[in-house]
Amino acid sequence: MGCLDDGHFAVEIENGVSIGHDGVLLGNEGGGVIEDAVKILLDGLGEDVNREGLRKTPLRVAKALREGTRGYRQKVKDIVQGALFPEAGLENRVGYAGGTGGLVIVRDLDLFSYCESCLLPFQVKCHVGYVPSGERVVGLSKLSRVTDVFAKRLQEPQRLADEVCSALHQGIKPAGVATILQCTHIHFPDIESVFLDSNHQGWVKVLVSSGSGVFENKTADVWDDFFSLLKFRGIDMDKIHFREPSDQCWCPSQSGKVSSKIGPVSPVMITAVASIIKSLGEDPLREELIGTPSRFVKWLMNFQNSNFDMKLNGFLCGGSVNEEVNFNNKKISSELNIPFWSQCEHHLLPFHGVTHIGYLMSDGFNPIGKPLLQSIVHFYGFKLQVQERLTRQIAETLSPLLGGDVIVVVEASHTCMISRGIEKFGSSTATIAVLGRFSTDPIARASFLQSIPSPTLSGQQ
Amino acid sequence: MGCLDDGHFAVEIENGVSIGHDGVLLGNEGGGVIEDAVKILLDGLGEDVNREGLRKTPLRVAKALREGTRGYRQKVKDIVQGALFPEAGLENRVGYAGGTGGLVIVRDLDLFSYCESCLLPFQVKCHVGYVPSGERVVGLSKLSRVTDVFAKRLQEPQRLADEVCSALHQGIKPAGVATILQCTHIHFPDIESVFLDSNHQGWVKVLVSSGSGVFENKTADVWDDFFSLLKFRGIDMDKIHFREPSDQCWCPSQSGKVSSKIGPVSPVMITAVASIIKSLGEDPLREELIGTPSRFVKWLMNFQNSNFDMKLNGFLCGGSVNEEVNFNNKKISSELNIPFWSQCEHHLLPFHGVTHIGYLMSDGFNPIGKPLLQSIVHFYGFKLQVQERLTRQIAETLSPLLGGDVIVVVEASHTCMISRGIEKFGSSTATIAVLGRFSTDPIARASFLQSIPSPTLSGQQ
Repeated sequence: MGCLDDGHFAVEIENGVSIGHDGVLLGNEGGGVIEDAVKILLDGLGEDVNREGLRKTPLRVAKALREGTRGYRQKVKDIVQGALFPEAGLENRVGYAGGTGGLVIVRDLDLFSYCESCLLPFQVKCHVGYVPSGERVVGLSKLSRVTDVFAKRLQEPQRLADEVCSALHQGIKPAGVATILQCTHIHFPDIESVFLDSNHQGWVKVLVSSGSGVFENKTADVWDDFFSLLKFRGIDMDKIHFREPSDQCWCPSQSGKVSSKIGPVSPVMITAVASIIKSLGEDPLREELIGTPSRFVKWLMNFQNSNFDMKLNGFLCGGSVNEEVNFNNKKISSELNIPFWSQCEHHLLPFHGVTHIGYLMSDGFNPIGKPLLQSIVHFYGFKLQVQERLTRQIAETLSPLLGGDVIVVVEASHTCMISRGIEKFGSSTATIAVLGRFSTDPIARASFLQSIPSPTLSGQQ
Repeated sequence: MGCLDDGHFAVEIENGVSIGHDGVLLGNEGGGVIEDAVKILLDGLGEDVNREGLRKTPLRVAKALREGTRGYRQKVKDIVQGALFPEAGLENRVGYAGGTGGLVIVRDLDLFSYCESCLLPFQVKCHVGYVPSGERVVGLSKLSRVTDVFAKRLQEPQRLADEVCSALHQGIKPAGVATILQCTHIHFPDIESVFLDSNHQGWVKVLVSSGSGVFENKTADVWDDFFSLLKFRGIDMDKIHFREPSDQCWCPSQSGKVSSKIGPVSPVMITAVASIIKSLGEDPLREELIGTPSRFVKWLMNFQNSNFDMKLNGFLCGGSVNEEVNFNNKKISSELNIPFWSQCEHHLLPFHGVTHIGYLMSDGFNPIGKPLLQSIVHFYGFKLQVQERLTRQIAETLSPLLGGDVIVVVEASHTCMISRGIEKFGSSTATIAVLGRFSTDPIARASFLQSIPSPTLSGQQ
């Protein structure tokens, strides 16, 4: 496996529909291995692999992974060749332009890649440019396409930048190539630390660059031109610290903190993840990948099927209410923007965002506090979930504690909406559950909904 | 042709690489017809269809059009079936949630579609939601996928909203479906009016909605919930005028103004465009499509190969300089944000943006005015182009008029970067040409580049 000779795109299509020319290959080779491995992982999480929501999850995960790592089966040569166009330079004057020396930049390409340290997708905003040489330019979309070939592999930001740079240099043979990547990696708290660290930052961000030819020297003037062209698009390089080669690995899974609640990691699950990596065409013994199966399993175990009491323990106390809206003789109390982290049971991919909770109470009565609300949200978040069920479960659990009139809104970004061939980067999902008076009284609903401010999802690019 | 039974995605890949399972079909049936038609159009524009940049344009256009209208060959049933999941509702309480009655919304889906009035792509920001019923929810990504099936056809905003709404209603069988589309259509001036209307708005925008079931009544309370969920994502529906059925067709090509310079439209070209529409599986005699070939050709003729004198006529006068930056004993004069419109010769798709021009002059000397700069930009814009060449040609033309020290920056959004399977919605391209002192003096370059403010491309979503 590994490299096929053709450059076909395998677009994710779920539910048994074929995924393009190499669909057969997927079904017979890589796909089967991944599906079996995913069944082992689900079993290790204490899940019933035959329940309705999970039954096709192994198939869906296999297809998503094959699609997300299609770069292993693509060749830059096929993309760039035939998209090189002769373009006259400036022959009779002193200067650079056209096919000779005039900088060409494509900015703000949204991509995603897979972190080789933990197997989670990470987002990439890519800026790529080159200085033409030999009166030859490349079709602009090819800068995006070539970047995507290397993004769709197990990656690390600096290597991704270097590989794109080097591939474009070889393909276009320009005076130089420059790449700047703004990478954003999801940073889940584990189920233990989430209760201790209320200011947990949901993202890790790094900025990396790579340059060839005239860009090889990081202090070359041509880099100033490049930065200027980014700057007046609102990207201020002066304010950003570029990552140094000596900096620690960026992946949060490398920080080493593991919840003591998780216990020893199952060797069977680790072997299953290693078999997935191998079936993608990678070498699980490559230095950077050796610890990956173990890190992935440790992370996954945050979402194991577990019981309620363990987590609510110690949090059953009252507290102050953040927001109040007068509503007839009662007040709408609300707790807005409670962060949550969860794992989509259809694709084994993270989704995360905020929960807004409202409830109707007689004047002054306030039975529970923010910590309890938070722990209920976290309890239902840290498992294999779908957003609709998460919303309902939070509402149903709160209802007896809060007098029955409850509204819950969950807003989330789903990793499965940016990976898997969907690639809807800016999209977000909202779900509502309404109980008691909120289900019958549109004015009560509207009063609560209007009290929600307009933030962007925290840390979102 | 028309509807195939499978739902395969045909992803655009250029330069002779196959495009998926129906690649053969493309080559033998639809593709050949479109390629022949595109050759006729290029010929009608006075172009040499064998010159290097255009040689593969017919093939590229055929593939892009087939990819951009793949919705004709997809079935919603294949996408939704098997992605319906049982999800318990709230059985023992008064309320709505989970699989029963709790609103589910996906916001900010970026798509593009093709305008049936003029065949140009238009951008769509889609918000779609439904109220589950029967304890059944649909995979979130399917809302995006089904929308895309109808977007990838020749469309009109209201029909697109209605078709998506109706297809999701049939597929999910929910209590109701709601769609809101923010559509943005490029609005080119023609080569005549661009000189007269310096405030030309580059976009036409409309907002449409459609609702089924509980959303059928536009004043239903559930619409308020829907709007609230959009509002706190920064989308303020109160400020937006929804399009009424009685409103005029939104497509700017329907306004009827045609440059007198273009002359009678070639029947051969019109027949060629009609054959393209037919080969996509559409009926060129459908009422809304009857005038489309003629409108497309009229628009295309703005980009015919033409001579210089005609356009510069009347504009060779001096004028004031907008910006000045002191630079040693000379001054860098600059004219920033001159809009331009052009047509990508590789894909016959529009690109547009702004040009920044800087030149070095002795104190007080100012040979030409903004009108001349604008007409030179427009002259090189209104033809089949590539951005690199456009930048160089503007610089070369200005050099003898401005004393030889010239810098030109072109910033553009390329329609070919959002359609054709690339779909990089936020991306933009920048090119530089430098002549004389600007090519040798990095401080001069930096002084000019730093003087460019940070606008977003005008009118951009």
